[in-house]
Amino acid sequence: MYNETSWDEAELILANARQAFRELKKYSIRQRASFMRTIAVEIEALGDELIKTAMAETNLTEPRLIGERARTILQWNSYANYAELGNWMDVRIDTASRTLSKTDIRKTAVALGPVAVFGAGNFPFAFSTAGGDTASAIAAGCPVVVKAHPGHPKTCVLMAQAIEKARVKCRMPEGVFAQVYSTGIEIGQLLVKHEVIKAVAFTGSFKGGKAIADLAAQRHEPIPVFAEMGSINPVFLLPEKLRMEAAQVADQFIASVTLGVGQFCTNPGLMVGIAGDDLNTFTAALKNAAVNAAPATMLHPGIAQNFEHTRSNALQQSEVTVLAQSGIAKAENQGDATIASVSAATFIANPALHQEVFGPYSLLVVCQNADEMLAVAEAIEGQLTATFIATSNDLAENQTLTQIVQERCGRIIVNQFPTGVEVCLAMHHGGPYPATTNSAHTSVGADGIKRFTRPLSFQNWPNEHLPEELQNANPLEVWRTINNELTLEPIGQPVAGY
Amino acid sequence: MYNETSWDEAELILANARQAFRELKKYSIRQRASFMRTIAVEIEALGDELIKTAMAETNLTEPRLIGERARTILQWNSYANYAELGNWMDVRIDTASRTLSKTDIRKTAVALGPVAVFGAGNFPFAFSTAGGDTASAIAAGCPVVVKAHPGHPKTCVLMAQAIEKARVKCRMPEGVFAQVYSTGIEIGQLLVKHEVIKAVAFTGSFKGGKAIADLAAQRHEPIPVFAEMGSINPVFLLPEKLRMEAAQVADQFIASVTLGVGQFCTNPGLMVGIAGDDLNTFTAALKNAAVNAAPATMLHPGIAQNFEHTRSNALQQSEVTVLAQSGIAKAENQGDATIASVSAATFIANPALHQEVFGPYSLLVVCQNADEMLAVAEAIEGQLTATFIATSNDLAENQTLTQIVQERCGRIIVNQFPTGVEVCLAMHHGGPYPATTNSAHTSVGADGIKRFTRPLSFQNWPNEHLPEELQNANPLEVWRTINNELTLEPIGQPVAGY
Repeated sequence: MYNETSWDEAELILANARQAFRELKKYSIRQRASFMRTIAVEIEALGDELIKTAMAETNLTEPRLIGERARTILQWNSYANYAELGNWMDVRIDTASRTLSKTDIRKTAVALGPVAVFGAGNFPFAFSTAGGDTASAIAAGCPVVVKAHPGHPKTCVLMAQAIEKARVKCRMPEGVFAQVYSTGIEIGQLLVKHEVIKAVAFTGSFKGGKAIADLAAQRHEPIPVFAEMGSINPVFLLPEKLRMEAAQVADQFIASVTLGVGQFCTNPGLMVGIAGDDLNTFTAALKNAAVNAAPATMLHPGIAQNFEHTRSNALQQSEVTVLAQSGIAKAENQGDATIASVSAATFIANPALHQEVFGPYSLLVVCQNADEMLAVAEAIEGQLTATFIATSNDLAENQTLTQIVQERCGRIIVNQFPTGVEVCLAMHHGGPYPATTNSAHTSVGADGIKRFTRPLSFQNWPNEHLPEELQNANPLEVWRTINNELTLEPIGQPVAGY
Repeated sequence: MYNETSWDEAELILANARQAFRELKKYSIRQRASFMRTIAVEIEALGDELIKTAMAETNLTEPRLIGERARTILQWNSYANYAELGNWMDVRIDTASRTLSKTDIRKTAVALGPVAVFGAGNFPFAFSTAGGDTASAIAAGCPVVVKAHPGHPKTCVLMAQAIEKARVKCRMPEGVFAQVYSTGIEIGQLLVKHEVIKAVAFTGSFKGGKAIADLAAQRHEPIPVFAEMGSINPVFLLPEKLRMEAAQVADQFIASVTLGVGQFCTNPGLMVGIAGDDLNTFTAALKNAAVNAAPATMLHPGIAQNFEHTRSNALQQSEVTVLAQSGIAKAENQGDATIASVSAATFIANPALHQEVFGPYSLLVVCQNADEMLAVAEAIEGQLTATFIATSNDLAENQTLTQIVQERCGRIIVNQFPTGVEVCLAMHHGGPYPATTNSAHTSVGADGIKRFTRPLSFQNWPNEHLPEELQNANPLEVWRTINNELTLEPIGQPVAGY
C-alpha cells in the first residue's frame, strides 16, 4: 500500500512541488475552493473503510472518529468558503492622491511556496494528511508535502488517495499534493531543510516542534515554522463560583480530563484553587467522579508507556500526593484517570511539575490565598488555553489575575472546559511559546490560511495586469480598504498614467 | 546630555517596561492615540534644534531632514488614526449557534509586551528613536526600549525628550518609553536576550539583523525579530519600453541611484537589460547623466569607507567593468555615482555580485536574450522591491518573468523607481529573506502595528468583562466579522448563559 520514501523519491517530489507552485498561480481562488470542496466529497466517499482503518491504527472509538471526519470535512468546506470570500488577503488600495499617497499602491497577500506538513498522532483526520494545515496551505495557493504520520500510515494513504482523486477530477496540477513515508527522521529533516520548502506546519510534542524550528532557523534561508506543541491548560477555580457549584464543576472537570483518554493538546492538566471548605467539597466530588471513570485504550503502546512514565515522574516529585484515581482496573495500553495535588509554593519552585503529562492526568495546585494564586499564574509558561471557573463578581474582583493569565494563553474561557476546539473564524488555537513557535497564528479556523501568505504591494501597475482582487472593478467582490475606507465598491476611475 | 547606560541601569529600565506593560492595559486605545498625536506635536516643537542637530550628526541636508521630519510626524498621526479605527485587531465573533460554533467565541488582538527597537543610521527621525517601529509598538500597546543609534545620539536624545514631554502631558505610565545609550554591543544584546522583551524591531545591515535574529532564536523563550536588512532592488528593463524611452529612463535611474547619496535600503543597485541597440542608447544616456552627478557627503566617515570598500570589492570581481561614473572630483567622505556592468552568466555564477553596495552604486547585468533574463531573476534572493520598466505589452509578454520576480520581493513597481517609500496603508516595506527576517510584515505603514500583537480568543465570557472591541454594543465602532459577515453593527442579543 505504501513504501518507505527514498531520498531520490523525496527530491523528485520536492521538484514537482516547486513546479506545481508556479502552475497553481494560473488557477483562480474559485478553482482552488472547488478543489477543496471536492476533497471533502472524496473524504466522505472513503466511507467505512476510513473509519475502520483509523480505528485499527489508533484505538480511537468509532463515534470519536466519525465526529473527527465530520470536523475534517467542515474544515475543507469552511476554509474553501473563506478562501473565496477573500478577506484573508487584507487588500489595501491607496490611489494616487495628494493626501495619502503620491502614487497608486495596492497590497494583497500571496502564497509563500511549497509547505511541509507534519501531522499529529491524536487526530488522524483533522490534524494529519488531509487536516487543517493542508487545507489552509492549499487555500493560500501553496503545494503541500505531508510527512505521513508513522502511527497511522494506512489512514494517511487513504486520505492521500482522496486528495489525488479530487485533484484529477478538478484538473489541478500534479505535485499540488504529495506524501512521503518514513519511519526514520531523515526524510522529515530533508523536507525542513530543502530550499523548495518555504514554511512548515507541525502538530505534536514540544521536543519535535522545537527540533524542527531550530532546523528551519539554521537554513541559509530561514523559514517560518508553525508548530503547535500542546500545553497544560490551567483551570483557575475562583471562590464565589466554587462555593456555588463545586460538585458540578468537579464532574465536568473529570469528564474533560478523561475525554479521549486525555489525549488532547487542550486537556486541562492543571487546576488552581484556594484552600478552604469549598475546595474540600470540590476535591471530594472529584474523588467520587474519578473513581468511576473507566480506563480506556490509548493511541498506541508508545503513548501508553509515555503516559505511565511522565505521570510516574510527576507523582515522584517531592510533596506531590495522589488526590483521586480511577477505581477500575485497567488493561494493557490503557490510561486511567489520575488527579494529583501539590502546594502552590512547591509547584512554583519545581519546573518539572509544569510539564505536560499526555493522558488523563491533572494536578491540583492548592494556594493559601489569592496572592498565591497570582504567583502561580505568573509562574506559568505560554499555554494554548486557560480557564476560569468564575462568576461575574469573581472576574471583577480578580482583574490582575485575569490580565496575567491573558498574557500567557491563546484562548481564555469562562465556565466551560478547553477540550472541544470549535472550527470557526473566532477560534484561536495557538498561544505564546512554548505552546507554539509562533503566537501570531492559529492552526484551527480559516484564519490559519494567513500562515502561508505574505503581503505584496503593486505600485503603479496597469489595471489589466493586477491580480483580480486588486483590479478596479473588484471582480472577486472582496472587502477592500480603499484610501482608508473599508468597502465592497469598485474603483470608478482608471489608474492614471496608462 | 547623555551617558553610556550601565548594565544595572538597563536592568532597571527593563523592569520599568515590564511594569508599564501592565499599566498600559488600563489605558484605552483612544488614550494611546492621543499620546501618539501629542508626540507628533512635541517633535514639531523641537523646531530648528532638531534639524540642526541631525545635520551635524548625519551630514544629511536641511531639505532632506525637513522632509523626513514631516514623514515622521505623519507616521505618528496616521498610525494613531489607524489604531483608533481598530481594523488591525481583526475582530471575529462567532455567537453561540448550531451552525457555526456551539459556544460564544470572540477573537481580538493583544499586545505582545515590551519591544526593543534598533533604529537605522540613514533615517535619524523616521526609522530611529521616534520612528515607525516605536510608533507601531506604542499603537499596539507595547512599551518600547530604544537602543539609541550611535551615529546620531544627540538627535536620539532630543526625540526621547519630545516623547517624555508628551508622556507627562498625557499622563501615560512611566516606563512606556525609554532609551539606552551604548557604543558597545553588550547593552543591545542584553535587550534582545532579556525575558522582559517580547519582540525586536531592527533596521540596518544584514549582518546586524542576522546577529539579532540568531540571538533571539536561542533564547529560552524565542521571540520574533522584525529586521529590515536592505536589498539590491533589481530594475528590469523590458524591450518595448526601453525602445521608446531609453534616455528618459536613464536620467530617472541616475536620479534614483544618487538620491540621498544612494543611502536608501530601496536604492536600485541592480539593472537587468537585454543587449542590443536600445540598451546601448540607454547606457550612453546613463554615462551622460552619471558624469554630471555631483558627489555628496555620506552619513559619516565609516559609511563612506564602507562604500569605497564594498564598491572596490564589486569592481574587482572578474569581468566587471565600469560603465559610467561621476566626472566631478569628490571630497573626503563623499560618495560618487558609479555604474558597473557585467554579463548575465558572470552575475549568476558569482554571488559576490549579489551583495548590497550601500551608496550611489548600481550594476547593469547584460543578458543575451529573454531566457537569460529569466535565469537572472531566478538567481536573485529576497528583495524589498523590484521594478519593471515596461509597457503593458511588455508585461503581457513576460508573465513568467513577472511571476518569478513577484516571488522574490515585497513591492513590485512599474515605471517608477523604488526610492520613495510612501507612508500609507497599502505600502508593504518588507520582503522575503534576506531582505527581512519576517516576510509577513511591513515596517512602513500602519499595518506595521500588527507586528507587535497576537490574537486572543475569549470563550463564553460575560459581556461586561470583555475588551471593548468585543462587547455586544461595539462601543469602539470597529469593523467586526460576526458569524462570517463583516459589519459595524452591534450585537442585539446578550450572550446566553449569564
